[in-house]
Parts: sequence; structure tokens; C-alpha cells
Amino acid sequence: MYELLKKIDGPSDVKKLSSDELETLANEMREALFHRLTNIGGHFGPNFGMVEATIAMHYVFDSPKDKFVFDVSHQSYPHKMLTGRRNGYIDQEHFSEDSGYTNPEESEHDFFNVGHTSTSIALAAGLAKARDLKQGKENVIAIIGDGSLSGGEAMEALNIAGEMNSNFIIVVNDNEIAIAENHGGMYKNLKELRETKGQASSNIFKAYGLDYIYEEEGNDIQKMIALFQKVKDMDHPIVVHIHTQKGKGYELAEKNKENWHWTMPFDRETGAPKFSFGDGESYTGMTVEFIMEKAKKDKDFFVITPAMPGALGLSPEQRQELGDQYLDVGIAEEAAVAVASGAAKNGAKPLLFTNMTFIQRAYDQISQDLCINNNPVTMVMNYSSFDGLTDVTHLGIFGLAAFTNIPNLVVLAPTSAEEYRNMLEWSIEQREHPVMIVIPGNAVAHRAADSDFSSINKFKMEQKGEKTAILALGDFYQRGEALAAEIEKELGYKPTLINPRFASGLDKEMLDELKKDHSLVITLEDGIVEGGFGQKVASYYGPSDMKVKNFGLKKEFYDRYDPEELLGEISMTPEQIISFLKSM
Amino acid sequence: MYELLKKIDGPSDVKKLSSDELETLANEMREALFHRLTNIGGHFGPNFGMVEATIAMHYVFDSPKDKFVFDVSHQSYPHKMLTGRRNGYIDQEHFSEDSGYTNPEESEHDFFNVGHTSTSIALAAGLAKARDLKQGKENVIAIIGDGSLSGGEAMEALNIAGEMNSNFIIVVNDNEIAIAENHGGMYKNLKELRETKGQASSNIFKAYGLDYIYEEEGNDIQKMIALFQKVKDMDHPIVVHIHTQKGKGYELAEKNKENWHWTMPFDRETGAPKFSFGDGESYTGMTVEFIMEKAKKDKDFFVITPAMPGALGLSPEQRQELGDQYLDVGIAEEAAVAVASGAAKNGAKPLLFTNMTFIQRAYDQISQDLCINNNPVTMVMNYSSFDGLTDVTHLGIFGLAAFTNIPNLVVLAPTSAEEYRNMLEWSIEQREHPVMIVIPGNAVAHRAADSDFSSINKFKMEQKGEKTAILALGDFYQRGEALAAEIEKELGYKPTLINPRFASGLDKEMLDELKKDHSLVITLEDGIVEGGFGQKVASYYGPSDMKVKNFGLKKEFYDRYDPEELLGEISMTPEQIISFLKSM
Repeated sequence: MYELLKKIDGPSDVKKLSSDELETLANEMREALFHRLTNIGGHFGPNFGMVEATIAMHYVFDSPKDKFVFDVSHQSYPHKMLTGRRNGYIDQEHFSEDSGYTNPEESEHDFFNVGHTSTSIALAAGLAKARDLKQGKENVIAIIGDGSLSGGEAMEALNIAGEMNSNFIIVVNDNEIAIAENHGGMYKNLKELRETKGQASSNIFKAYGLDYIYEEEGNDIQKMIALFQKVKDMDHPIVVHIHTQKGKGYELAEKNKENWHWTMPFDRETGAPKFSFGDGESYTGMTVEFIMEKAKKDKDFFVITPAMPGALGLSPEQRQELGDQYLDVGIAEEAAVAVASGAAKNGAKPLLFTNMTFIQRAYDQISQDLCINNNPVTMVMNYSSFDGLTDVTHLGIFGLAAFTNIPNLVVLAPTSAEEYRNMLEWSIEQREHPVMIVIPGNAVAHRAADSDFSSINKFKMEQKGEKTAILALGDFYQRGEALAAEIEKELGYKPTLINPRFASGLDKEMLDELKKDHSLVITLEDGIVEGGFGQKVASYYGPSDMKVKNFGLKKEFYDRYDPEELLGEISMTPEQIISFLKSM
Repeated sequence: MYELLKKIDGPSDVKKLSSDELETLANEMREALFHRLTNIGGHFGPNFGMVEATIAMHYVFDSPKDKFVFDVSHQSYPHKMLTGRRNGYIDQEHFSEDSGYTNPEESEHDFFNVGHTSTSIALAAGLAKARDLKQGKENVIAIIGDGSLSGGEAMEALNIAGEMNSNFIIVVNDNEIAIAENHGGMYKNLKELRETKGQASSNIFKAYGLDYIYEEEGNDIQKMIALFQKVKDMDHPIVVHIHTQKGKGYELAEKNKENWHWTMPFDRETGAPKFSFGDGESYTGMTVEFIMEKAKKDKDFFVITPAMPGALGLSPEQRQELGDQYLDVGIAEEAAVAVASGAAKNGAKPLLFTNMTFIQRAYDQISQDLCINNNPVTMVMNYSSFDGLTDVTHLGIFGLAAFTNIPNLVVLAPTSAEEYRNMLEWSIEQREHPVMIVIPGNAVAHRAADSDFSSINKFKMEQKGEKTAILALGDFYQRGEALAAEIEKELGYKPTLINPRFASGLDKEMLDELKKDHSLVITLEDGIVEGGFGQKVASYYGPSDMKVKNFGLKKEFYDRYDPEELLGEISMTPEQIISFLKSM
């Protein structure tokens, strides 16, 4: 098992292999992918599709002198295997040593920590610019999937590349799909190019001023080697358009590419996940239910997503059923926000959804295209929680700091199923404000909730007590509840518990009221403290006698942490908070 | 004078005119543009170029049922004149009624408040989406300049438009230049299209799946009318590529398009500005000096800008002299940041510059492409001040809140020429941190300054006093100095004065030290309070006895305000602060 792969300590070992051995190596690498993915899950389709091309790249180019930059880098597992990190794939004990993305801390063959799409061409163009200033001659190679091409940053960089006049190789790995189906006019052109083997007169890459070459057999090692040998050391930018099969080598994945883009640990025979989350209720599930009902009742309502139907688990069948009331704009967060703003301006009721980490891409559009214009768009953000996605490139903990400081934007943080649903309904029906709702990251809770949120920044007093007031925001509300009980038990008094509901502003009346019989306000929020909700409270009380303690995450790029351990590090376990209270 | 223009209360009045009258109207509109611009300045070239096309648009289409969305909207003056707002151009008393951009509060013919580039196609696509849901039939028309096409949001939207199947008209106003020269491979294609009168087989718009039509004579009213009549009520998206002359009708502007993109009030005979800022020193001027010197000494150093050489006033001659050490990537903030990050990773020393309001576009790239990777890029931001640009779409007051909450990013706020220069030098030479330096917005000050900033977040104690400590950040330092003097005079004690220098973190040691003999800390910052520097201080002191008062702007989209008046509104005049102190 892994006979050849075990001998590969780096690219120079790949170069020594015969063509038969390269084929064997490809098979071993797929076995290694199975070994890791059946056990711990990860990106499936992108990696199974890139085995041959990656072998050829390392056979022809001379990494790390020649530099590969992988877009999103969720297809970089084969690259990792060939650059000294095979153990992360063949040996269970070493799985955790490799992140799911390229990582300069792991290897000199990786240049960037990336996880968002559409960045590779621009990052690589920067490597090339520095090379040119230093009059270097090495190859710089960006590897980008077709789905990532629709992101503005990628197209900006294609345009920049079109004016470069030194070596720059852009490998477009075309497997005909993003996570879900591709969306956008350019994909008609890619199809035409595939169908004409690159000969079509209309060619988006050439229109950007780039040289171009096509290879149909992206999963044929020898053809890939010949192709890369042709473009190696070229003195100008070129797009190398290769056609690969996503999920190649596993029938289930070849057939259902969307489901097998990323996988949980699974049984290889059946494809069934090794454990399941159960069919219990979830905040994302109830969002989908809400969407399907609402769309039937109200023809002005539509959902829009930048290529992330999976953020809520909206199935192909449901998308079909929604028809014109579903708009996937492709990976294009910026335009998605602007389209939603325009549609709201013209009387539609758009609900935009994706993951919190990805909407950062549209910070300026949320500020300018949406909030200056104050159009009633509802944005629903998943994974806006410290215990959701824990890869450094996918953290949701910066969202509150980013978006609660944009004027006009109402940021709502629901604390229960009922409240979340009411917020959705209210937000879509009101015509006054752009609204962002952060989906709770904890287990679904049930509590009675108000249905009208038109008194902006009106907090909800859930328990009137004394001395200490706990402002527990969003999915940290249940932590606040537990803390209140703990205080009563440990410290012998009943504290006040408040559900702020609004993350983007203060209920000054209520805060003033608290001054009467409270000396301390504690804020709990599921995000970094800096720039977030609690600091607004601290600032408000700053000149007064009220003491304030903000609890939340540090301003830090955490990476693959254990959420419970992290709570301890930031002194946020109930015991730690009680001990803080005792010290006051 | 303005005989015809005075009769135009709306588009229906345009439709009544004969072709000769339309020509006369065009002349009167140019006169009106001269009247406004010689007196109060504004965007020159874009508006002089769009007179004829705008007349034709209103002649053919039926605004506001048919909907125009202008990109940046700095070319919308002719549109405003024809939609009931001529007085803002022909009558000095009414100049201030019209903003320099489209504005829904002014007229039902304007749909969005915009000022950043590359948004029109996506915003218009949203209007079209809502129209289609409502089964409406009106025309939706986006008008975008060639320079704006290179912005990611615009290309994302071209891609989205390529998949629409209802009326959608994209007018590409090609005048062969952005503010400065265009940059990017696509401009070779636009040139080819112009040279072949739209017949070239390579066509970037068609590659996005869009229908396409070309008209060479974009300043010929009748030809424009014929063109728009051809595409009106079309049942699918089409790009209408028109060639116009920027600055048409004023020889100086036709010849020097970059200088006449925007103008100060000027003398029509000579083109000379009516008043000058003098040749005194400026922070932007000294940045240019620094760049030119540094580039000569260090071949790894280069500057990169997303189409904003004017942000610093880097002249065409200086750009020429910089050669390979100058990189204008076109309007493409996202890719600019990624290119800079990549270049830094590969050993270059990039200095990226633009205006603070525009870098918002790259929020995600600053976080992900740059700061997670911790590459040593220096970003220099102009107009990061409440008394710089006062249009709602160009405010620099949100920058500190946006960027001081991104981990790893060191945000420096210099308080003098010496400190600024030392920070530039230090930042470019260090290899540890991404750095953003905000250019002071006040008059150039001179003070001795440290030259080493490697002790991150180390504040500088400028005056040790008692009771009250003033933390006066960046260009509000001089206000802090004045306040300190005022306190000594009015309240009879010497307060402490601190120059924080770092906006992105706290000198906890110094803050703890202050607890000994101070009961109040005042923070002054040139930006909104929420999410900014002061709130970090308030949060830190929250559980302690120290009282904190944060001074700064409110979280609000201010528009065309008087900066001095605004200071009063936010209780920040020295008298107001003294009176606050007396109340404590």
C-alpha cells in the first residue's frame, strides 16, 4: 500500500518516475484521498479531479522555485501529498498536521493561507511582480477552478494579467461546476471553448488580452505533462484551460458532484456518512421552510445567493420549485448585494444568504450600494459563530465587528426559533431598513418572542434583577441564562438578564434605567470584542459610574481550535465569569 | 441665454424638440455646465462628454418609468438638467440644491445615491429582477464608463447579465480613459472594437454572453437617438458600446483629459483655477517626495494604486520616471491588495495608496489575502478625515472602524510630518506586519518624532499631567494639544496628553499606569466612535474605576456638511469639552 507515494518526499522524487509509475502514483494518491476523507471528511470532488494535473505540474515545474498558487486551495491535497506531507493522508495519526487549505506554515511549497475564492490570479500576479523587479526567471502558476472565475477579484486579476509582459501561467481547471451549478454568461463561453477544443472565435480569456491554450484530457498525466512543458518558461501570460472530471475515480461523486464537493466522513462502499446530525430541527432547516412558504405566498419575495445554496441546505429540487424566486448569481458577493439593493428599490423583497465569512467580500457594497440607499434587503448569515467553521479562512467571528458599524444597517441577533422566524417575517415585510440577521450557531432553542421589531434598538428585558445586568446577544443568550442561574446560586442574588436583539445599536433608555439598581453590566457576544456590540455598551457607560465587562473573542486569527477550550482561554466559562464577579 | 433649457421641466419636454432644437439644447447645456463648473467646480470631462447621449436617452426612453442607473454618477449632470434640476446649473443661487451625484432625494429620475465605481450594472440588474417578478415591461438602462469596467463588481454583473433573458441595456460610454489612463488587458479589446466599428471577432461583451451593438459617433444626437430606438424594448440584455469624447466642447479639457476629469472653480478663458491652495507643503506632496526618493534607492520598492495616482497627486511624469516601480492596476481595489500581498510575500516592498473611502472595496482582501498571511504591505490612505471629502459616498470617517478590527493589521495614525515620514520608512523596511497609515487631514504640523515603531501598540506620552488624560489620535492630536492648554487655563490643572500612534491596539501598560493619578480618559479620533479606537479604550477600562469619554463622529451617513458645524453637533468644540469636564 502506498509503495510509491511513501517514497515521495518532494517534487524531485516525482520527476524520477516512469510514466507507468506515475499512473500507479495517481492510483495510490486516490487511495490516500479515500483514506483521509472516509475518516475525517473534507473536500472530495475538487481533489479527486486534480490528481493527474497536480502530478504533471510537479513533474514539469520546479516547486518551490516555480510557484503554485491554488485558488480556494481546497483542491491542494494532491499537491500536499507530493510536497512532503503524504503522512497527512496515509497515516491517521498525522491527519491533523495538514489543514484543508494551502498553508505556508506547513511547507515552503505553499505561499498563502487561502480559503475564499477568486484570489489566486491576483496573489500570483503579485509573486510575479516581485520576481520581475528582482529580474528573476521562475515560473508563477495560478490554478483556478471555473466556478471561482465569476468572482470580481478573479476578473480584475485576469484584466491585470492581460497587461503583464513576463511569465505568468493561469491554469483554469474547468470541471463544469462550482459547488452547485455554475451561473453566469461566461459559462456559455467556457462550454463553447470545451466543445470546440479551445478553437471558438469568442474567447473570454483572449478578450482580456491573454494568450490561450486548451487541453481536453485534464485527467491524462502524459497529456498534462506535454501541455505544461509547452508553457513552461513562456515569456508572457497564458491561460491553460484544462478539462477535468470533478470527483473522478468514485462513481457516486462523479454522478452527484454537488453532494460530493465536500463530504463528512463516509463509508466507501455505500457513500453513506459515518455519523449523522440526525433529522432534528436546525436554524438553517427552518430558514428553508420559511423561504419555501414565503415564496408561495408572496410573488415579490425572492432569494438570492452568491453560489451558496448549501449555506442553508437549499436542495436542487427546492431551487427548481422556487423558479424565478431563486437567483444564484455565481460566486459574486459584491454584485449579489447590489442586485438585492436594486431589486428592493424597485419593490421586490429580496432575502440574500450565504456564510458570514464570505459576505465580508461585499463590505463596500453593503455600505454604499445598500445602506447609503437604505433599501429593505434582508441578509441572512450562516456560520456567524465561534463554534461553526474553525479554519482561519472561514471564521464567522468578525462579522459583528464589520457590520454593526455601518450606518443604517439593522443587525439582528435572534435567540430562539420563534424569534428568528419572527425577525425574518418582520424584516422582509418592512420597507425602511436594510437588515442583517445572524443565524444562531447553537442548538435550536424555543422561547416566546415578539413579532414586531420596528422599534429599532429596543432591547428585551427577560429577567429583572439587581446589581449585575447580563446583556447576552444572539446565540450567547443561553449562556447568559445559564450565567444568571449560576449567579443566583453562587452569589445569592438575582441578576438582570437582557436579550438585546439588536446588535447594531443601543437601547439607551434601558441602559439608563439600569443605572438605578445595577453597578455592573456584563456583555456576552459570539464574536470578537473589538468593534463589536459590547464595546458600544462600554463606551456609552464610559463617563458614568457603571462598570462594564465585555466578554467575547479576541481580535485574532484563530485556526482549527477546540471551541470549548477557547472559551476557557478567553475567560468565558461560567466558573471564570463567577470568579471575575467575586473579584469585583 | 438658456432659452430652451429653461423650458425643460422634464423628459417629455425634450421629446417635443426638433432636431435643430436638440442641437441648440446641447449647446445651452454645455453653457450651463460651464456656469456651474467655473463657479463651484466638479466633474468636468465626464459631463461634457455625455451631453448628446443624455439628450438622446431622454428623447427615446421614458424616464422614470424607464430607469437609468449611472455608474459613479459623476456624469449625470446633463441628466439632472433634463429632469427638473436645470436651476442647479444655470442659477448660482440653486447650485447647492444638486449634489454631484445621482440622488433619489432630489428626483424620482434618480434611483441610487452612488459615488463609488462599477456598481451600475448590478444595481440596474436588481431593478430589472424586480420588474420581471412583477411582470413589468419598462426598460432598464445602466450607463457605465470604460474605466469602471475593470472593477470586479462590474464584471460580476456583466456575467450575471449574460444569463438574464429580459430587457436590459448596458450603455458602455467609451471615452478611452478612466481618471488617468486605462489599465488592463480588456482595453486592448475595447480599442480593437473601436477600430473595427464593433466588428472585431474578439469581443469581451459577447464572451460574457451578451448581445452587442457599436456606435462610433457618441456625440452625435441623431445617431444616438437612432441607436437607442433600435435597442428600446429589446427582450434580452445588450451592450450598447458608444464612443464619446471626454471633455468635448472645451479645448483644454479635450487635450488634457486627466487634469480636466474634475476641476476646481476656474477661469474659462485661461483654464486657470480661480484660487489655489498655494505651493505650501502637504502630506500628500511629501508622500510623493518620499516615493520618488525611495524608488531610486531601493529597487524592491514599488507603488501600486487602483487607478488613483491623483490620490497623492503623482503626475504622469513621475509615473513615467518610476517605470516598473509604478503599477496602476486600473479600478480594482480587491486585486490591488492581493497583488501587493503576493509581491510582499516574494520579497518586494509594496506601497499601496488610494483614498480611504475606496479601500473599503477590499475589506475582505485586506483581511484574508493580506492579514491572515501577515505580509508586509504598506497601505497609505488619503482623505481619512471628517473634513476631507464630505459627499455621503466619499466619507473617510468609517475607515478606522473598518480596519482597526482586523487582526494583524497595524494601523498607524501620524501626528506630524516627521512622524509620518518615519512611519513610512519604518513600515516599508519592516517585514513583520501589514500596515495601514492614515494620512493626516489637517494642516501639516512639525514635531520631533520617533523613527522606530516596532514596539507595536506603544503609545507616546507627550505631556505627563494629572486627573484627565487625553488620547488624541492622528490628525486630532493638535486638537488634543489645544484642549490640554484649554484645560490648564480653564480648570487650573495640567492634563496628560498622549499620542497613541497606533489606532489598532492598546498600550495596556500605559493605560494601567494612568489609573494611579487620573480619573478620566478622553479619546479624540477623526472617525466614527462606534467600532473605532476610543471604544477599545472604554472597553479596557470598563471594569475599572477609570471614567472614559469617547469623542468622534456619530455612526451616520453625513452628507455635504460644514465640518466646523459638525464639530459642534457632536459636542467636540473645546468649549463643549470643557463644559463636559466641568459637569463630571
